[in-house]
Amino acid sequence: MQVSETNTGRSGGGATARRTRADQARRVADILRHQIHDGTVGDTLPGEQQLATEHRTSRNTIRDALALLRDEGLIDRAPRVGTRVAVQKFDHGLDALLGLQETLEGHGTVRNEVRVGQRITAPPVVARRLGLEPGKQVVYLERLRYLGDRPLSLDLTYLAPDIGARVLDHDLAHTDVFVLLEQLSGQPLGSADLAVEAIPADRHTAANLDVPAGAPLLMLERLTRLDDGTPVDLEYIRMRGDRITLRSSLSRTNPEWKVL
Amino acid sequence: MQVSETNTGRSGGGATARRTRADQARRVADILRHQIHDGTVGDTLPGEQQLATEHRTSRNTIRDALALLRDEGLIDRAPRVGTRVAVQKFDHGLDALLGLQETLEGHGTVRNEVRVGQRITAPPVVARRLGLEPGKQVVYLERLRYLGDRPLSLDLTYLAPDIGARVLDHDLAHTDVFVLLEQLSGQPLGSADLAVEAIPADRHTAANLDVPAGAPLLMLERLTRLDDGTPVDLEYIRMRGDRITLRSSLSRTNPEWKVL
Repeated sequence: MQVSETNTGRSGGGATARRTRADQARRVADILRHQIHDGTVGDTLPGEQQLATEHRTSRNTIRDALALLRDEGLIDRAPRVGTRVAVQKFDHGLDALLGLQETLEGHGTVRNEVRVGQRITAPPVVARRLGLEPGKQVVYLERLRYLGDRPLSLDLTYLAPDIGARVLDHDLAHTDVFVLLEQLSGQPLGSADLAVEAIPADRHTAANLDVPAGAPLLMLERLTRLDDGTPVDLEYIRMRGDRITLRSSLSRTNPEWKVL
Repeated sequence: MQVSETNTGRSGGGATARRTRADQARRVADILRHQIHDGTVGDTLPGEQQLATEHRTSRNTIRDALALLRDEGLIDRAPRVGTRVAVQKFDHGLDALLGLQETLEGHGTVRNEVRVGQRITAPPVVARRLGLEPGKQVVYLERLRYLGDRPLSLDLTYLAPDIGARVLDHDLAHTDVFVLLEQLSGQPLGSADLAVEAIPADRHTAANLDVPAGAPLLMLERLTRLDDGTPVDLEYIRMRGDRITLRSSLSRTNPEWKVL
């Protein structure tokens, strides 16, 4: 095998040593990032010396690792106060078809600012994905979704026309669309196809989500079908990268396990 | 229901009209983004007038939508040449435990620059997740992964000590770790827990992955177990947001379907 660098942080000089320290800082930062999200570190991180011991590295490397996490907005650092967790991040399950309010139950109340809710003529690709004839109308929703007073996501939703028209009659400010789709159709949701990307926030989206322009967003495209296979809901969801972690478990006993 | 804006783009004046056009541009951009990734638009996008007709909007809105995609690096625009797709994005299946080379079969050869491959003392949380006693050694790999000459991901990998030591004896530049784990253990991989985030590229990572500092990355943390349930592989994978789309299908017939 090839090993281009031993990563001991001692052997090389100059640029190599710096690169090695940056590599080690990233390695430590990744572990800390996930400890922050899963709550195992609590509100305050251990001191630099303890972290240096745990990760068998120098305090300088620990400082660099903490600087990376501070630059991501995950922690605050102050003399004497130490290193505090600055954000709470929420888990969103990728392998369950749950609405945001259901997902965040126990964390607070989801409020939706419904910015658009109207019938539009489906663009050709939207019609195709929803199994509609070209030129058919669909119901289009645009919702800015908050947990308490903090924006979490901006959701653009295209609904099949008949069920969509009935969705419009309901309280979309306080009810998940998934819940309404199951109530109105009288059947559970059956399946979904997901695509997940990391994209930068354009300026307009950034203003809506209260993040800097260019901030990383999780972009989820999801086509959801009823239990009988009817596609009903095509969504484009932008989630704040600093607020949401998508989680999934998979196992080979899963019949959906597939060779791509 | 509450509708704060009708999104017709005609009724309001000034700031409202501009906000509405930005909203419409984002809506069109989202649809085009996924058409670019799934290949339905080919190498060249339709002209502005055709897009305006398909999306029932103005050419100005189409121009704004294309500007968003250009800012993300997805397309190039030039007079007379039109709008060309600038990047090829690759799908990575979230619901199959496949290595990168297996996933990208048919797209080219994956080459791994092995930057680190050595035994280290496991940090406490790594030991815990791999089911090891505190202070045990693990095998640590750091690989910069290319498709052809284009960097796709930077992978930090902690392997259980026994199988990890045997992995180190193999050609890690050209072989997926998942393939080696199955060969060396004599059993298939059984299950995994995944967490997916969008994070900004720190400067050092950005240089490795050949993206601007702050560029959005998909960050995948994955703990993988053998078929007998033994955890063997804890990974922290940074994927270029402009190169990789994660995809998944799920259905209620799936026994892994769970209420979070």
